[in-house]
Amino acid sequence: MAPSTTDEVLASAVDIKLLLTGEKQAALSKEEQLALIRVNLAEFLNPEIIEKAIDEGRHPRIYWGTATTGRPHCGYFVPALKIAQLLAAGCNVVILLADIHGFLDNLKSPYEIVEYRAQYYRFCVTAILEAVGVPTEKLEFVLGSSYQKSPEYIMDVYKLCSVVSEHDAKKAGAEVVKQSDNAPLSGLLYPILQVLDEEHLKVDGQFGGVDQRKLFAAAKEWLPKLGYKERAHLMNPMVPGLQGSKMSSSDPDSKIDLLDPPEVVAKKIKKAEAIPKVAEGNGLLAFTEFVLLPVAEFQGRHFTVDRERDGLEPLVYKDAAQMRADYEADVLSPQLLKPAISKALNELMAPIQAAFQTSKEWQEVTLKAYPVEDKKKKVKKVKDKGTRYPAGAAPPKDGEGAAPAAQ
Amino acid sequence: MAPSTTDEVLASAVDIKLLLTGEKQAALSKEEQLALIRVNLAEFLNPEIIEKAIDEGRHPRIYWGTATTGRPHCGYFVPALKIAQLLAAGCNVVILLADIHGFLDNLKSPYEIVEYRAQYYRFCVTAILEAVGVPTEKLEFVLGSSYQKSPEYIMDVYKLCSVVSEHDAKKAGAEVVKQSDNAPLSGLLYPILQVLDEEHLKVDGQFGGVDQRKLFAAAKEWLPKLGYKERAHLMNPMVPGLQGSKMSSSDPDSKIDLLDPPEVVAKKIKKAEAIPKVAEGNGLLAFTEFVLLPVAEFQGRHFTVDRERDGLEPLVYKDAAQMRADYEADVLSPQLLKPAISKALNELMAPIQAAFQTSKEWQEVTLKAYPVEDKKKKVKKVKDKGTRYPAGAAPPKDGEGAAPAAQ
Repeated sequence: MAPSTTDEVLASAVDIKLLLTGEKQAALSKEEQLALIRVNLAEFLNPEIIEKAIDEGRHPRIYWGTATTGRPHCGYFVPALKIAQLLAAGCNVVILLADIHGFLDNLKSPYEIVEYRAQYYRFCVTAILEAVGVPTEKLEFVLGSSYQKSPEYIMDVYKLCSVVSEHDAKKAGAEVVKQSDNAPLSGLLYPILQVLDEEHLKVDGQFGGVDQRKLFAAAKEWLPKLGYKERAHLMNPMVPGLQGSKMSSSDPDSKIDLLDPPEVVAKKIKKAEAIPKVAEGNGLLAFTEFVLLPVAEFQGRHFTVDRERDGLEPLVYKDAAQMRADYEADVLSPQLLKPAISKALNELMAPIQAAFQTSKEWQEVTLKAYPVEDKKKKVKKVKDKGTRYPAGAAPPKDGEGAAPAAQ
Repeated sequence: MAPSTTDEVLASAVDIKLLLTGEKQAALSKEEQLALIRVNLAEFLNPEIIEKAIDEGRHPRIYWGTATTGRPHCGYFVPALKIAQLLAAGCNVVILLADIHGFLDNLKSPYEIVEYRAQYYRFCVTAILEAVGVPTEKLEFVLGSSYQKSPEYIMDVYKLCSVVSEHDAKKAGAEVVKQSDNAPLSGLLYPILQVLDEEHLKVDGQFGGVDQRKLFAAAKEWLPKLGYKERAHLMNPMVPGLQGSKMSSSDPDSKIDLLDPPEVVAKKIKKAEAIPKVAEGNGLLAFTEFVLLPVAEFQGRHFTVDRERDGLEPLVYKDAAQMRADYEADVLSPQLLKPAISKALNELMAPIQAAFQTSKEWQEVTLKAYPVEDKKKKVKKVKDKGTRYPAGAAPPKDGEGAAPAAQ
């Protein structure tokens, strides 16, 4: 999906590669910082709050939340790349590992498992950012359980519940919480918590998908009711999955696990839906635009599509507009794009998988976070489909298909 | 209102006065204990849970909750008398002073004030029970804030919210929580808390008005969802106020403050609505039945109506049935009943007011709990009405009219 839905989006004129060193970063002008913060955003509410932080000589502090449930898949590269841009722009980024939410999402798993999943998420997100080449010293991980059970926090939950109507809580969660009369009450409580997280994490702004818009609007309105200041909100457009606009947790081919080996990645990309000449809602193009192009930029090169088979020069893309134009003109066909994506994605994932291979701790955490019982069940299922998953990599799990936008 | 709405109600065959000494209490048979527990109840769910506690040689542990908001008025004598009967029957009684609820009920008052109100409630309830002559060593006061902010409790709140639907939470609170789309979210959270209180206060049962029935039914259903055992539920019938079936917080005459001097009490009783010969919905008869008759029984005497003016012997009532029959036959006229109630109520309140007069601590707490700013405003209002309130006793406050059934 093109980020052209709002005119808030600015094409980055900044050479991101040069920002990766601290010296260069310090030398960024306020305008350059803000331009980098805005890259690929669909919307940016109250940017003046972030500007003010920069004016005060502070690193704007921004949080992104994710519930620690299924294994992070390649969809996580989308927010990760935005986080990389925020870090490169000099922001302090807080990743909220919402373990309590993960636990409540599926009361069947014991709490210890969710704790291991939080550790697994931490390994994954760190590895993704390191693979991109972003310095992670301004990255902070916070476990939801480290403060969401504190007396101060819970009093704020009680207070906010006293001044927010059921109607408004429902409206705020309309796009991110399943809503029906039979929906659990937690669906109304989650917006309350997500709003309070902004205050308790002491951030200047929150980052999430545009599906969080109503929730972010609620945060602007609700925090002042308790005497807290309102925050800025940064929104990524919704990026379709590799299989089209809907990722399905029941179809493992719609998700690529971070530990999927190269041949599995190639197979899944090959199978991905991609209507020739139709750029809108095209998962492959979107993934390239929001992940592979910025990654190439971070690494000082361009996204390249090989055409050797046809005896032609490779296509080299610096920006999404040219790529989309070529796709619509069928210069860039799905048959050309797919192997280019497989190659770039496998190159991106190689250091992540290497980090996994050399980290005993990560490996152990993985076994505890996604225990063998589950794997066995899944492996059996998968076997019926033709041993799609090699022994080393667990298949995606239920719930994994959820957009990694926020809690 | 007669407790004849269910056949669960048994007339007490026990001479309560004799139960007040520990020796006699120990000698009570299980049947006598249960009969005393059942006196004046409209409903008693899962009595076998209480029976089991007695069979195990334990004192059944029962809780009653009250939000610490406005000043306790004479309506509090109704649950207090039931609590007196529970204590006399050998139960351990926990009074939950729901200070957090009191605070959330009116975010305008600072939290300290609510803390003082909790202390004020404690003084009042203790004084009421002592005035009745019940030993209070098996009475325990617990502040809601002492455990409702703990990590264990809040995790249970989160968990229960994940397994209870919005629809069911709304249904559970239907009779005790104001419900509309604009109602605050806390209205849906309160049933969750009230149910969890049963587990976290480690009680065998909860006592409240029949208006709590849906909530109690929810408790039976919800606690096992978290692996907790279900509790017994004891329900008082709803007792009409002195002014008829509805107590109004805007009409101070419908409520008698525990510290109202005798002449104010007499005036309010005199003004009370009482249709001759109509016993149903008659607040004066109900108050006599649920408070003054049991008090007389506790004190080893009978409720007596003087008829000296008419040159007749006094009417002496041991039970409500005879009193109602006399009222319906106009033998007991409102003109006879009112002064008898004033006299008995003032006698009941005299030791409470004496305790207040001799307790510097209680007096200081009162000033802090219901500060002078409020009083001044009210006094001004009251002056316009004709100095209804003498300087010594603050007028009833908003919110005081709420039935003291539970949180």
